[in-house]
Amino acid sequence: MPTITRLDSRDPEFQATLSDLLAVDAEQDDAIDAAAASILQQVRREGDNALLRFTRQFDHVDVDSVAALEIPRREWESALANLPGAQREALEIAAQRVKTYHAHQRQESWTYTEADGTRLGQQITPLDRVGLYVPGGKASYPSSVLMNTIPAKVAGVSEVIMVTPTPGGQRNAMVLAAAAIAGVDRCFAIGGAQAVGALAYGTATIPAVDKIVGPGNAYVAAAKRRVFGTVGIDMIAGPSEILVICDGKTPSDWIAMDLFSQAEHDELAQAILLCPDAQYLDAVEASIEKLLPTMPRAEIIRTSLRDRGALILVRDLQEACDISNNIAPEHLEVSCENPDALLPALRHAGAIFMGRHSSEALGDYCAGPNHVLPTSRTARFSSPLGVYDFQKRSSLIHVSAAGAQTLGKVANELALGEGLQAHAASARYRLTNIQ
Amino acid sequence: MPTITRLDSRDPEFQATLSDLLAVDAEQDDAIDAAAASILQQVRREGDNALLRFTRQFDHVDVDSVAALEIPRREWESALANLPGAQREALEIAAQRVKTYHAHQRQESWTYTEADGTRLGQQITPLDRVGLYVPGGKASYPSSVLMNTIPAKVAGVSEVIMVTPTPGGQRNAMVLAAAAIAGVDRCFAIGGAQAVGALAYGTATIPAVDKIVGPGNAYVAAAKRRVFGTVGIDMIAGPSEILVICDGKTPSDWIAMDLFSQAEHDELAQAILLCPDAQYLDAVEASIEKLLPTMPRAEIIRTSLRDRGALILVRDLQEACDISNNIAPEHLEVSCENPDALLPALRHAGAIFMGRHSSEALGDYCAGPNHVLPTSRTARFSSPLGVYDFQKRSSLIHVSAAGAQTLGKVANELALGEGLQAHAASARYRLTNIQ
Repeated sequence: MPTITRLDSRDPEFQATLSDLLAVDAEQDDAIDAAAASILQQVRREGDNALLRFTRQFDHVDVDSVAALEIPRREWESALANLPGAQREALEIAAQRVKTYHAHQRQESWTYTEADGTRLGQQITPLDRVGLYVPGGKASYPSSVLMNTIPAKVAGVSEVIMVTPTPGGQRNAMVLAAAAIAGVDRCFAIGGAQAVGALAYGTATIPAVDKIVGPGNAYVAAAKRRVFGTVGIDMIAGPSEILVICDGKTPSDWIAMDLFSQAEHDELAQAILLCPDAQYLDAVEASIEKLLPTMPRAEIIRTSLRDRGALILVRDLQEACDISNNIAPEHLEVSCENPDALLPALRHAGAIFMGRHSSEALGDYCAGPNHVLPTSRTARFSSPLGVYDFQKRSSLIHVSAAGAQTLGKVANELALGEGLQAHAASARYRLTNIQ
Repeated sequence: MPTITRLDSRDPEFQATLSDLLAVDAEQDDAIDAAAASILQQVRREGDNALLRFTRQFDHVDVDSVAALEIPRREWESALANLPGAQREALEIAAQRVKTYHAHQRQESWTYTEADGTRLGQQITPLDRVGLYVPGGKASYPSSVLMNTIPAKVAGVSEVIMVTPTPGGQRNAMVLAAAAIAGVDRCFAIGGAQAVGALAYGTATIPAVDKIVGPGNAYVAAAKRRVFGTVGIDMIAGPSEILVICDGKTPSDWIAMDLFSQAEHDELAQAILLCPDAQYLDAVEASIEKLLPTMPRAEIIRTSLRDRGALILVRDLQEACDISNNIAPEHLEVSCENPDALLPALRHAGAIFMGRHSSEALGDYCAGPNHVLPTSRTARFSSPLGVYDFQKRSSLIHVSAAGAQTLGKVANELALGEGLQAHAASARYRLTNIQ
């Protein structure tokens, strides 16, 4: 069995083979969904009591009150103070860069006034309160705390409530330090579907939020799906993906390692390279074979590359762009001499890494843009997490007395056409010859 | 039984009573969900054949091919040409105003360059193809065709595919005329969960879209929920709501009719008035009693006002704003002398109608802003339908060789902290002292 699949876009079976490779079984697990639903219902009904019970059961943390599960700010501050200097500095630089980038996304209210004095516009306001889920255990990433909290704070959200399970009472110092840097407001050592329920419905101790963001396991994802509507949620992320378009002139080790950096996330992660140069694909394959044994997470990478990876020979870079648009990858590296020339042809991708030096890892941590990106082809219709996810808009309609005369006649006509007579009358009442 | 509930914010039971009044049973119907799931699966597997079968079964339209269900453009054009002059003119004025307003929402790509030559930004692109669901029968609203299509076209969506069921072959001329004016690209006489499935998965005849918008019955809503992820969807709307804050000086008939204009939508619609003047509430109640018998949809209005409406006496306008923020209404009328003074206190609402002349009906049809608005308190975290719903963003990251030196060190540090060695190596490879 080869380490990674080789494909050729000229092959008549290419489209079908690629589709199979891209397909992910996104089916929801009914048992997990039912368990999440039951937990949510208990938290909704019993509040803090249910939360304490589930925290005992799942995290083996036994306390008398949910207040005892709040991790006090002094603990984050000391986690930050005790971090190795280089780590602290790296987190602070990353946070500052993420903040600078996201400030560009802030939207402002606007209005315009028409000749008759009617004023129309849009008022932009931040969400009041946001919940941030941070997984415990091995997938506990401080970078994720920065990427989720900073856009909310840039948007002007007054309160970010972080929740994170602490199995056996184990708290992750780097995550707490990141919370301190990012500007989290409160933090509770709770997790799972029960934490999602507490944030969505509120309990005596946990304040109800307006939106819940952040990654989680299958129970957390099922719970988020279920509370959507009561609160907003971010997207439910699928397996992570990288697509590299290369002209064949980037050092092959670089590209092999970029593919690894995606594949090391988990066995379902997807790493694909498109290149018009068959010899270059050989070179990358050789780099993969050479470098793979050196990687600590070699087994995960091996499974991911074998089951979901591909090195694809394309006719030219234009065809590579077409294939990329169809895949709509989460991460797209354009490792080419003149990436700007290809940019107009690239319509769908979560983040586009341009040029040979823009490795995905830089974007994952510190370039500035968000690392929460649309997966599983959803970049066709959705966007990276951003400040806009923590702002919402209200239309502003201030019709002048004069404006009501012209608009009233139009609304009256259309309302009658739709059989809505109260709408019509309500518009007519503002006509001066009627009033 | 009174025509409408009277409440007083000073009443100790007020908060609880109001919560009961606001509560909507949003539970999904399992039988409807299962039926929608089965229809979707058949359309996914059998494509056009399943679509023809369901169209026969549900709409009693029996044709041999889905192509025969396409409503050709000449038919919309003639529907438009044959419309009464006043109706045609009203639709055209409304369309133009909606277009002008939404043009303000268009977002543009941006980049900025750092001192070391690293360039960061965001590329904004429209969705490729959007599906618009338009209900058949009594809830078939041409205004809805304008409100859903125009933002997509302003965003630059190349193709808007409209679907609308035509039970017994009945086509709605005003809806087809609106499609012609709004710029719909193709139109098919299909509906129900089967139309949602055809748009989401594509069939031999119906092109797959990237997002589905537009209102529909419970089967359509269930189908939209299920295809979410494969395609984007707009929000699933709950019952429509109006909240009026009045200083007690708007003619009481106007406010009564504004409440009716919401209540006439359906029995679950909600109309609430907040005012600090008890005598004014009496006057509005009297107007309701007087005007209600004159309304063609009096029975619907009566049920809606009785079960879900309220006239609420508040301490002052500031308290009215607080109550309004808690309700986060879809439509908020600020029928006061100086609405601008209250605006900063109004944080959550789909659309804010300011001043005595800004009746909701004007916004529903022709003021310019969208009439697709967040319901059921979701204005706390979501926005009116807009151009931004038909655009998406890709992060742009072009790290210079110099930038890769500083960013590479930061990424390396953080990646090692998270135990992701391939990420770290991929960043280190771009450091010149390594390469």
